[in-house]
Amino acid sequence: MDHSEDLNWKIFFEENSKPSHFDENVKLIFEVCQQAAIKKHRVALVTSGGTTVPLEQNTVRFIDNFSAGTRGSASAEYFLEAGYQVIFLHRSKSLEPYSRHLVGRSIFDMIEILPENITIGQKHQVELRTLTEKYQQYKCNLLMISFNSLSDYLWLLQATAQKMQILGPLALLYLAAAVSDFYIPASQMPCHKIQSSGGPLSLSLQLVPKMLAPLVTLWAPNAFIVSFKLETNETLLESKSKESLEKYHHHVVIGNLLHSRKVYVILVDRSSSPPEEIRLSDSELESGVEIESKIVENLKERHTKYYANHKTG
Amino acid sequence: MDHSEDLNWKIFFEENSKPSHFDENVKLIFEVCQQAAIKKHRVALVTSGGTTVPLEQNTVRFIDNFSAGTRGSASAEYFLEAGYQVIFLHRSKSLEPYSRHLVGRSIFDMIEILPENITIGQKHQVELRTLTEKYQQYKCNLLMISFNSLSDYLWLLQATAQKMQILGPLALLYLAAAVSDFYIPASQMPCHKIQSSGGPLSLSLQLVPKMLAPLVTLWAPNAFIVSFKLETNETLLESKSKESLEKYHHHVVIGNLLHSRKVYVILVDRSSSPPEEIRLSDSELESGVEIESKIVENLKERHTKYYANHKTG
Repeated sequence: MDHSEDLNWKIFFEENSKPSHFDENVKLIFEVCQQAAIKKHRVALVTSGGTTVPLEQNTVRFIDNFSAGTRGSASAEYFLEAGYQVIFLHRSKSLEPYSRHLVGRSIFDMIEILPENITIGQKHQVELRTLTEKYQQYKCNLLMISFNSLSDYLWLLQATAQKMQILGPLALLYLAAAVSDFYIPASQMPCHKIQSSGGPLSLSLQLVPKMLAPLVTLWAPNAFIVSFKLETNETLLESKSKESLEKYHHHVVIGNLLHSRKVYVILVDRSSSPPEEIRLSDSELESGVEIESKIVENLKERHTKYYANHKTG
Repeated sequence: MDHSEDLNWKIFFEENSKPSHFDENVKLIFEVCQQAAIKKHRVALVTSGGTTVPLEQNTVRFIDNFSAGTRGSASAEYFLEAGYQVIFLHRSKSLEPYSRHLVGRSIFDMIEILPENITIGQKHQVELRTLTEKYQQYKCNLLMISFNSLSDYLWLLQATAQKMQILGPLALLYLAAAVSDFYIPASQMPCHKIQSSGGPLSLSLQLVPKMLAPLVTLWAPNAFIVSFKLETNETLLESKSKESLEKYHHHVVIGNLLHSRKVYVILVDRSSSPPEEIRLSDSELESGVEIESKIVENLKERHTKYYANHKTG
């Protein structure tokens, strides 16, 4: 990390102010970390969904990243079931653990109206009981924090990572959010809605400083850090994933392609061996196995080794 | 409308292909219109939510418009309750009639687990009964069709307007969707994800052809057409709304400001009198009155007069 990059991330935080409810949220995050540290529980920060980049100060238009939060919300469930306390830092209105299974269906179609009361219809009893039981069981281990813009996300990421320091190697960061690479600095944004009468529109976007650099070295130097690399071009997948790991010196890069991300990922780590692959078989897919269950199982094992080495090292 | 504008909208449809499930959706829309025409029922097309504009052909990034679908989903409920058949053309995952009241709350917190079955908890009985009853009552009058991109939206808008012709003046178009003014033509889009290693990004966006022109003159010449004008600058609100009406010769422009849109709108029509205003009082706001109830009431009255004139005229 050279000096100019070091300055860039600091400038970003100077130019973009804290999101609303920041202090309350950071307090909640700190309480979770403190309690877990006392009990020596593992904590996973799962980031999920896309960030927005406003094009106007009174925001009507923004650039968004393709992400429904599928990977993050599913992974959060598996981390909970693997015994982690989970901080779920997610795009507002993106998919959430448990409720994601009901997306596209209306609860009003599942409710039966009886003269004396309303209840859950017979044919939805089994599915909703399973989901409700899991939700109610794990709810106390799940802290949900939401964001919209890139700037909100980066403020919350920094603060969460810093608060997780108290956990040392018990902290795992699973950075599944689709974070924008480009943004328009506040000083270059028009105040009001861009008028279409002005004719064709030219936008000039700046690169977002790479926050993985300060995250790994300064904010969470003892945490186990997993990042994602999403590509559309298969020939770039492995090289891009390796490049990222070599640049930031964290622990695992999970490489995935837009069109096969639900059935295939590669896990690139610091060892010289070829990347580990996780691929769902047709029969696994048919029986409803989710690739996130295998990713989390794999990472939990890696995190266990990391934690053991850290204690003895 | 000069000849060059005429060509522009045609070129857009030539360059952008139909969305998936287009033919099935258009068939459903036509069936609704046909049945309503036989029974002489009014039909409202309510468009809702923002459109996306892809920046890449394998879309990872897109430009989006600020819109949760609040206006459209609330209005759809009031049109249903005012006796309209409603075609709800909405952005996928934006707010929907009835379920919008539960947003931000988890159904799993409302379900009570008993040994023999699961049911709705006592304190949620009244609210969920009211919503479920309304939903189940109006469901058969509501056709939900969803879109994501600008191009999907415009294809569906054109087809719906054309199918609604069979209804003559019984058709009302309520164009509450936040439609992008700018787009990148498919031929100018990169195929793969834009690499951040390329440095700062310049985007050049073209103006979207104004579809209100062919909509009013060609696709739905007998329908009662209401459009919206959202501004952030109060001094431009009335002039921009009037300008839109004068340009497209439709029936009502509802002008609203980003920051006051839930309490104040103006209704601009072809008469020379000053725009009608709808403003919620503090006591109305406190008691939960929604401005959409008053907008729909106002428009239903206007639509009745329009329909009467059309028959006698």
